[in-house]
Amino acid sequence: MSKPYVLGIDIGGTNTVFGIVDARGQVIASDSIKTLKHANFDDYIEEMHQGVERLLKAYEAEDKIHGIGIGAPNGNYYTGEIVKAPNLPWGPVVPLAEKVSKIFGGIPVAVTNDANAAALGEMTYGAARGMKDFIMITLGTGVGSGIVVNGQLVYGHDGFAGELGHVIVKRNNGRICGCGRTGCLETYCSATGVARTAREFLEIRTEPSVLRDLQIEDITSKDVYDAAVGGDKLAKEIFEYTGTILGQAMADMVAFSSPQAIILFGGLAKSGELLMRPLKEAFDKAILPIFRGQTKILLSELKESDAAVLGASALGWEAKYRYEAPVANLPVVEE
Amino acid sequence: MSKPYVLGIDIGGTNTVFGIVDARGQVIASDSIKTLKHANFDDYIEEMHQGVERLLKAYEAEDKIHGIGIGAPNGNYYTGEIVKAPNLPWGPVVPLAEKVSKIFGGIPVAVTNDANAAALGEMTYGAARGMKDFIMITLGTGVGSGIVVNGQLVYGHDGFAGELGHVIVKRNNGRICGCGRTGCLETYCSATGVARTAREFLEIRTEPSVLRDLQIEDITSKDVYDAAVGGDKLAKEIFEYTGTILGQAMADMVAFSSPQAIILFGGLAKSGELLMRPLKEAFDKAILPIFRGQTKILLSELKESDAAVLGASALGWEAKYRYEAPVANLPVVEE
Repeated sequence: MSKPYVLGIDIGGTNTVFGIVDARGQVIASDSIKTLKHANFDDYIEEMHQGVERLLKAYEAEDKIHGIGIGAPNGNYYTGEIVKAPNLPWGPVVPLAEKVSKIFGGIPVAVTNDANAAALGEMTYGAARGMKDFIMITLGTGVGSGIVVNGQLVYGHDGFAGELGHVIVKRNNGRICGCGRTGCLETYCSATGVARTAREFLEIRTEPSVLRDLQIEDITSKDVYDAAVGGDKLAKEIFEYTGTILGQAMADMVAFSSPQAIILFGGLAKSGELLMRPLKEAFDKAILPIFRGQTKILLSELKESDAAVLGASALGWEAKYRYEAPVANLPVVEE
Repeated sequence: MSKPYVLGIDIGGTNTVFGIVDARGQVIASDSIKTLKHANFDDYIEEMHQGVERLLKAYEAEDKIHGIGIGAPNGNYYTGEIVKAPNLPWGPVVPLAEKVSKIFGGIPVAVTNDANAAALGEMTYGAARGMKDFIMITLGTGVGSGIVVNGQLVYGHDGFAGELGHVIVKRNNGRICGCGRTGCLETYCSATGVARTAREFLEIRTEPSVLRDLQIEDITSKDVYDAAVGGDKLAKEIFEYTGTILGQAMADMVAFSSPQAIILFGGLAKSGELLMRPLKEAFDKAILPIFRGQTKILLSELKESDAAVLGASALGWEAKYRYEAPVANLPVVEE
């Protein structure tokens, strides 16, 4: 009997979530550990291994895992490594696939970054089922992207393709980005970008706003959302500004790969019409006429709590890398 | 014996060039007709057919054509049609593959746009041999692009992907583009874009320049090139301006597909260091650190006179569409 489950592992900056997933995308069971508890990578892997084994045992799934898919910040599909992830403590390059396959006795492993995993999850179980060309945009603390062309994830020649959070949306006088440059999309259209816009608007503009009652440095995108839902005009205009920039940037993405849909995922994507109306207006206005009306803008259909694990797990079905113990260097016996 | 040749047809705004090409990319023979001579599409196809047949006869290649590849403005790979090509007179939608396959007795035909054909030519015979991820930028009257990901041309869900000449490089106060929008890359970095820049610079700036001796409305990119080669400072700065905008736009393209190389083709690409130095400087400065130093900027290795036909011909090897005469609607005889 072929093995009916995959293991999906999502390594986030705070939690590492792992789950057993079946072929229909049902998360049979899941659990998590704290990602940053161990500064030593082997210790981290060991704790994750123990957590997973407990889960496998409880659900009698020890011999039923077809493959392991892992989504990790700066996870590289080609090398199976995590490379220079800004928020992880284990060193500049970590051999993730190798260590995980080894500790799980040679089960095949595949690694990719979190946004690519989200795209794969959407294609396998969500809003992009049946689509061969789409773009996934994750609107979280930063802006990530996973691009699918001809039914395949776009990894690029080095495994790092799909950094659409770092296209430049303001050439002059743009905001400073964590990547060291200025004007990146994610400095405007992420949760932190919305909070930065709020601070700028409050400083430069004079209208009254309930946001003025808050400590300016502590304002979050959630505060802006709550204020906008409550009818605050300035807060609504912050979403207008955010949606417009995102819609314009998305129109340029269509000129690249002419996708059937762009799918939005993450906290900000749940802002409803506050974000979507200005976004769609700007998108329709900015798009090249030949593409007009052709590309759908959709919201993710995956439950946020499951999405990361589901996305990672989807990679488990096609995982190929398998750790093999080095063969001892036996002396050659001459006859 | 399998058939040793393909036919490459490049439909340009002025000439339609066709050639017999062998598997090693040698153009055995080629000829051309005027594209705009016939306002009726069937008449145009008939003249092209006669020209090709003459060539096939002269080289005894009548039964040796494996397939026909055609590059055409707004040529659609999926439908085999030319759709809304601004400079062609035959109507909004022309069934190119069908007509060509029919008149050539059912030889398989494939159609794509001219920039995609150029990319295919470069991958099959030129600077992109062996590459699975690259972007071709054609710098002609306009700016076109052909994108290859995982060894396949990116057509998008509708066959129109790869319009990188129409990404927006100036959000505010950008130049009006033929596509009806403002600020498109091709309004700055095409041959006509360079001429527009010259006119702007001459009007706004006060430095002396040999370009001031020309009728301002008649200035071409060739005039600017000649002046720059002759040491004219303003002309050199026009290339500086052009190269900087193109380099910045190319850095954003890398964030999408992380290609091994971006390959430049067309008249402007032959401007040497005048264009390439500022282009590479801007590219290196604007690129996301994770990609820095990874993507090569190359010039096409195909001879310009052959490139279009070679590119189109490369599509001939994989051509699948084959015209089949409709079956007559025979009356059903009841027994």
